[in-house]
Amino acid sequence: MKNSLQPPLRLLMGPGPSAIHPRVLAALAKPTVGHLDPFYLQVMDELQGMLRTAFRTENHLTMAISGTGSAGMEATIVNLIEPGDPMLVCVNGVFGGRMADVAGRAGADVTTISRPWGEVFTAQEIEQALSQRSFKVVGIVMAETSTGASQPIQELADVVHAAGGLLLVDAVTSLGGMPVEVDQWGIDAIYSGTQKCLSCPPGLAPISLNTKAVEVIMSRKSKVQSWYLDLTMLANYWGQDRVYHHTAPINMTYGLLEALSLLQEEGLEAAWQRHALNHQALKAGLSALGIQFAAQEGHQLPMLNAVRIPSGVDDKEVRGRLLKEFGIEIGAGLGEFAGKAWRIGLMGHASRQENVLLFLASLEQILMSQGHAADAGASVAAANQVYAGQ
Amino acid sequence: MKNSLQPPLRLLMGPGPSAIHPRVLAALAKPTVGHLDPFYLQVMDELQGMLRTAFRTENHLTMAISGTGSAGMEATIVNLIEPGDPMLVCVNGVFGGRMADVAGRAGADVTTISRPWGEVFTAQEIEQALSQRSFKVVGIVMAETSTGASQPIQELADVVHAAGGLLLVDAVTSLGGMPVEVDQWGIDAIYSGTQKCLSCPPGLAPISLNTKAVEVIMSRKSKVQSWYLDLTMLANYWGQDRVYHHTAPINMTYGLLEALSLLQEEGLEAAWQRHALNHQALKAGLSALGIQFAAQEGHQLPMLNAVRIPSGVDDKEVRGRLLKEFGIEIGAGLGEFAGKAWRIGLMGHASRQENVLLFLASLEQILMSQGHAADAGASVAAANQVYAGQ
Repeated sequence: MKNSLQPPLRLLMGPGPSAIHPRVLAALAKPTVGHLDPFYLQVMDELQGMLRTAFRTENHLTMAISGTGSAGMEATIVNLIEPGDPMLVCVNGVFGGRMADVAGRAGADVTTISRPWGEVFTAQEIEQALSQRSFKVVGIVMAETSTGASQPIQELADVVHAAGGLLLVDAVTSLGGMPVEVDQWGIDAIYSGTQKCLSCPPGLAPISLNTKAVEVIMSRKSKVQSWYLDLTMLANYWGQDRVYHHTAPINMTYGLLEALSLLQEEGLEAAWQRHALNHQALKAGLSALGIQFAAQEGHQLPMLNAVRIPSGVDDKEVRGRLLKEFGIEIGAGLGEFAGKAWRIGLMGHASRQENVLLFLASLEQILMSQGHAADAGASVAAANQVYAGQ
Repeated sequence: MKNSLQPPLRLLMGPGPSAIHPRVLAALAKPTVGHLDPFYLQVMDELQGMLRTAFRTENHLTMAISGTGSAGMEATIVNLIEPGDPMLVCVNGVFGGRMADVAGRAGADVTTISRPWGEVFTAQEIEQALSQRSFKVVGIVMAETSTGASQPIQELADVVHAAGGLLLVDAVTSLGGMPVEVDQWGIDAIYSGTQKCLSCPPGLAPISLNTKAVEVIMSRKSKVQSWYLDLTMLANYWGQDRVYHHTAPINMTYGLLEALSLLQEEGLEAAWQRHALNHQALKAGLSALGIQFAAQEGHQLPMLNAVRIPSGVDDKEVRGRLLKEFGIEIGAGLGEFAGKAWRIGLMGHASRQENVLLFLASLEQILMSQGHAADAGASVAAANQVYAGQ
């Protein structure tokens, strides 16, 4: 048995978890303390401060939920929604669909609007939906990990607020890899995950809610349906009172703190630029291989590159060989895109030029052996041109 | 900032997290792989096997929920309960009270029976409650961490089954530290945590459900209210189909696997005996200091020793000095026992004779300095007598 816990070394370039910095792995193994230890309370305070920096917010209620990104989605929804509350959910991929499902289970009266996979919503479309009916919450996914589509958020808050609603944003994949401006954009509630551009193993879900959202929660008439995710109680543990709620995942918190420290050392804007540059280089390289993006032009995520599998190429064989021969994990297509797309992640610590070049060279070798490649070396050359011109 | 992530070395002898074996900390830091990586699927299989061994069950649906012990409580309840279902909850401490709260939020029609803090229920009392009304689920806490009371479980299943109900057991604190015989005792659903006698940092919740419980879940008329904890979907990820649900907490799973390996290497019965012996030694030592247990005689947990704070002793000062001068964390009283009890944990890797002796010697020094001690050295001598006579 003991021999089996020797994980293979993978270059994680899928939809998450992403490659983890050694300092983050080392942080996970630091000595465990109690969840009410003075040291841990200080760790929580620092974590909250760093999360505020990452979310670009002054929101007091900024913390980490003790579960993965989907628990962050569920936490924000079950706290904001009481049975019968109308909620609008924008669906253009798996995670929008998940949000509608979670909202329905929370008792929301859910209305969905949809766009084809790979496309994004305009503010006008949402305004149109809001003109039909008033909604307590409007939920939308910023970085749809199933399609690689990048949803503009900045122009949405005014539209939602004018109609009297709260804007809830899924930033699981976007946080740390592209601008997420909670305060400037007027986002009322937001959640993320640790295993994407923060490059920490999965296990925690950063969330942030503004005063308006907190007031909605604190003036609920019914109990939050989830005890575990009840922010009226969790706020007392993360706040000054430090009232015990559940035993916090101590070592995961160490890992997230270290991951956020790395982000802070690099600088948030520098991290965004790095993600954008590596995306451009990857895109140039894939283009040279004749591979097209699945998401609409102008709305492609820098950290999650969903591309159409060229016709005649064996999806499973390519992913299998990347993993076995090169140690590279990329993601399969999900939902509608199963068997039709690859999802190439350049998230956090994975978003580095050496990974882009290695991936392109490896993919080219595999495609050439299947008789599908364009000019040999063209993809790496195209990527290097982007790096040369930066 | 970087300097702040240097956790102090604590000897964790509170109500959990417990002292962590270095091998478990090292496992947390092993390279992260993807949640659908062939290696990780193998880790999941091994984890399930080891959890079955720890729970003493053949239950197919045995897995780890991606949250702490309280998420395990919520997972079992929201899956078994549909709105309006009658549930009986036995309350003799904080965690029974929490179970009733969670059940109510899940829409259960909750009836509680109660015993004073520190006491346990008899099968007759439960039979009596079941004769008044039929209940779909009967929930009870085996090791009430707030009082140190050890609830006999073995005789309950027949009573519950005769009345047509399912027996749900909270084994957060008991698993790995005393007999928990899921199959032999006829427990239908059970949950635990990682940070007690399994000596893994908090973050996962082992659960196990038998065929009868699974059938109840699979034939639900309504969706499970929690998407994140929905076992109808999670079973597809942990089962043969490997359908993606949420991104599993990879590194936490490594830690739990290593913790279970340690338990398996020692042997489950040997671990139970170790916990029993160290409890007896601690009890003898505390008795020599004139310190009494809070739970009723004959029903005291081996891994969580809740004791009454001697009159005139300053609770906070004693705990503060233990932490500052000796690096030992013990737990404060919770709920009704706040300010009245200490909770001394001898859980998992913390349950060792060197910890018992060091704790007694440290406590004696502090109490003597406050003028409260009995014969100097008597507590260590009493503990050593237990070890000598083993």
